[in-house]
Amino acid sequence: MSKTATPRAPIGAAPLETRQILDMNAFDASQDGAGEDPLLSRRQANFGAASVLFYQRPIEMVAAQGAWMEAADGRRYLDFYNNVPSVGHSHPRVVEAVARQIARLNTNTRYLNQSTEAYLEALKSRLPAPLSNIMLACSGSEANDLAMRVAMKATGSSGFLVTEAAYHGNTHLVIQASPSSYKQGQPPNFIETVPAPTEAVFGADIAGGFSKAVAKAIGRLKRRKCGFAGFMCDSIFSSDGVFSDPPGFLAATIQKVHAAGGLYIADEVQPGFARTGDALWGFARHGVTPDIVTMGKPMGNGFPMSGMATRPELLSAFCEDFGYFNTFGGNPVAAAAGMAVLEVIEDEDLLGNSFRVGGHLRGQLDDLATREPRITAVRGAGLFLGVDLSAPDAPDQPDPMFAKAVINGLKDRGILIGAAGKYGHTLKVRPPLCLTEGEADQFADTLQATLAGV
Amino acid sequence: MSKTATPRAPIGAAPLETRQILDMNAFDASQDGAGEDPLLSRRQANFGAASVLFYQRPIEMVAAQGAWMEAADGRRYLDFYNNVPSVGHSHPRVVEAVARQIARLNTNTRYLNQSTEAYLEALKSRLPAPLSNIMLACSGSEANDLAMRVAMKATGSSGFLVTEAAYHGNTHLVIQASPSSYKQGQPPNFIETVPAPTEAVFGADIAGGFSKAVAKAIGRLKRRKCGFAGFMCDSIFSSDGVFSDPPGFLAATIQKVHAAGGLYIADEVQPGFARTGDALWGFARHGVTPDIVTMGKPMGNGFPMSGMATRPELLSAFCEDFGYFNTFGGNPVAAAAGMAVLEVIEDEDLLGNSFRVGGHLRGQLDDLATREPRITAVRGAGLFLGVDLSAPDAPDQPDPMFAKAVINGLKDRGILIGAAGKYGHTLKVRPPLCLTEGEADQFADTLQATLAGV
Repeated sequence: MSKTATPRAPIGAAPLETRQILDMNAFDASQDGAGEDPLLSRRQANFGAASVLFYQRPIEMVAAQGAWMEAADGRRYLDFYNNVPSVGHSHPRVVEAVARQIARLNTNTRYLNQSTEAYLEALKSRLPAPLSNIMLACSGSEANDLAMRVAMKATGSSGFLVTEAAYHGNTHLVIQASPSSYKQGQPPNFIETVPAPTEAVFGADIAGGFSKAVAKAIGRLKRRKCGFAGFMCDSIFSSDGVFSDPPGFLAATIQKVHAAGGLYIADEVQPGFARTGDALWGFARHGVTPDIVTMGKPMGNGFPMSGMATRPELLSAFCEDFGYFNTFGGNPVAAAAGMAVLEVIEDEDLLGNSFRVGGHLRGQLDDLATREPRITAVRGAGLFLGVDLSAPDAPDQPDPMFAKAVINGLKDRGILIGAAGKYGHTLKVRPPLCLTEGEADQFADTLQATLAGV
Repeated sequence: MSKTATPRAPIGAAPLETRQILDMNAFDASQDGAGEDPLLSRRQANFGAASVLFYQRPIEMVAAQGAWMEAADGRRYLDFYNNVPSVGHSHPRVVEAVARQIARLNTNTRYLNQSTEAYLEALKSRLPAPLSNIMLACSGSEANDLAMRVAMKATGSSGFLVTEAAYHGNTHLVIQASPSSYKQGQPPNFIETVPAPTEAVFGADIAGGFSKAVAKAIGRLKRRKCGFAGFMCDSIFSSDGVFSDPPGFLAATIQKVHAAGGLYIADEVQPGFARTGDALWGFARHGVTPDIVTMGKPMGNGFPMSGMATRPELLSAFCEDFGYFNTFGGNPVAAAAGMAVLEVIEDEDLLGNSFRVGGHLRGQLDDLATREPRITAVRGAGLFLGVDLSAPDAPDQPDPMFAKAVINGLKDRGILIGAAGKYGHTLKVRPPLCLTEGEADQFADTLQATLAGV
């Protein structure tokens, strides 16, 4: 359901800019309320200005299992934020796979080993056949950095198109393609943006509207010296605010990207590994085949690993200028973690669970939205939903400060969740894939109580 | 000892270029000798053109412990190549720390946890006091990418100075500052190079000669639009060919870097964590305090982790434009691995061992060099030594093809080793820090037998 018309400026003293969203729920040392936590002071001293902590009273975690995290004060939290431990925190099969392999052999890919090859083949068998070369790295940022370089070499151009509030990583190259990370300034010349594929911007014909906007943006890039190398896109549009519907709407866009000579880089760090409930990969929802697929966060359930899959001829061209070797990437321990994740997804039918429990949760939230006027949209696929929160009596006015209050209210009631979107007013509903219907109900009930109490 | 005068062109049909060095010992599918290893064919199909394997008959590894690796055919190899499992392959304390923590809690640094803070403080207590902020990431490439960005923000410039055959990592930004990785082409406008600090280039006064060359190169950068942001330097000059002496020679250079308004980024991925036998960090050998220190490879003994330490004001300035958050960086499992490494270094006195066994090995190799005319220099510190191999009766002519033959001969005799240097004729002697005198003797004896037999 969606009650949103074209949004007005978000509520608040000053209009909230994209660049502030990621900090919406961050601890702010200049504000009251943190108390005198010595561990917090130590973190501030150790990380300095780059410290990013959730909540005005940050939580010290000591343990986690399944969908639950346990704090030092004994409180337990239902984790609706984190899609890294996607098959469940501390999953015993991943834990055992890492512990077994790290005790035996952990070396680099300049030697052969069975663990790495077995994993690469398991992963390839789950990807579109043309993408038969995989490079393994450590972080989604490294995978996207490599993907952009492969696209630049393939096209001879350096211009990239991303969405307005995209996030693709933190290297020098990739963060410039991540407008949601800018605290100030505008995208550089070689980065062009399009609005996220929302009904508010494009009306009912998302496929047509979005693809036309993409074509125009490609035209703007082509008129610059950089040209057009590719369109990099998270198909669930997480940081933009979670936009998954209608299934297939991306196909028209990818046609235009290819017609313009660019590559389609599918950033599967967020939607990949069964998150969307309908397929292992987010792009599959749209019936498109990427030129490059990048993977990260849930790939090793928290073990640092990432990957980039592409066609052999694209990698061959890239390797004319540079090779690619990653010291830790694809080591047998990472491969063992990754294999355990793939096996758990199948053995525990987490794709089916994401579909069923995600659908159940969606129903609960749609139902809640009929009774709660502050909920103005519920969107998403599988176990990745977005819930817009708007001003009282003004469904077209995003209310990020209310979202912040709800996030903190949920925390007080034992649920961890974050916000997303250009205006920061979208609850990012993203629990581990092992979530039960009971836990989904607990979330919906607690959200109702929180909305009533804020 | 050093018998090297100004080197002539290296021996071989065509002069070997820097860009080919990294491939000196690589498997080459176009050459004979690989046999019909099905695992090799699978790797080639999975990694494609980016596959990098050691040896014309790549080795399938199945296990490793201490300084030893075990292949699938039952052969055991003494590992003189790999400085990632620096405290010893499969060290039980690192294995146990990872296994224990990953079973309990593996989350990101947006929550507080004791493991991460304890590690950060242990690490800080071992670094120069001004470098009191540490960012944790996954790879040395990520750490160097971040360091270069911090330096650009601090100086308002984007020009960097590196050595001719430097290697600093594989992101888009960092690989441009890694001339040893170029297969073709020249450094971009914002990268300037200086020759490595060798007697052959600078004569007896390395400190004076190298610092003057650096000052001139800074001048070249400053005359370009990019200006001068910093000098990034691995103080053991690994990929340049291992140059560590005389201790203190870098101080004059760092003075010039600072006088020119640039930062000194100490890339400790290679010399850090007790490798050089005289201090935990390579820069300490030169009595200098870096503005930024980056760490990687041995930091977690193979668990993917890296770090960047700097002064709070430099990080604060950087954070005006962007924050820095790394999903896997600094997670409690990485922190547990890193802490175990620091503890093992102290409890097993690996710094002392690096000094003692490294000194013993150096003595053996110096002695061997007096009897072997093909060995024209032995250099280095602690357990990181470089051994130059030159043409018969021409000590000024690097012989990379001979180095390749020696590397393969050593492999046939059960020892793993690599090559480095602008000409690829330097054996890179870099065993785990737990090496025993007996293992050092075994290497020296086997090298002697190999030189006689090649």
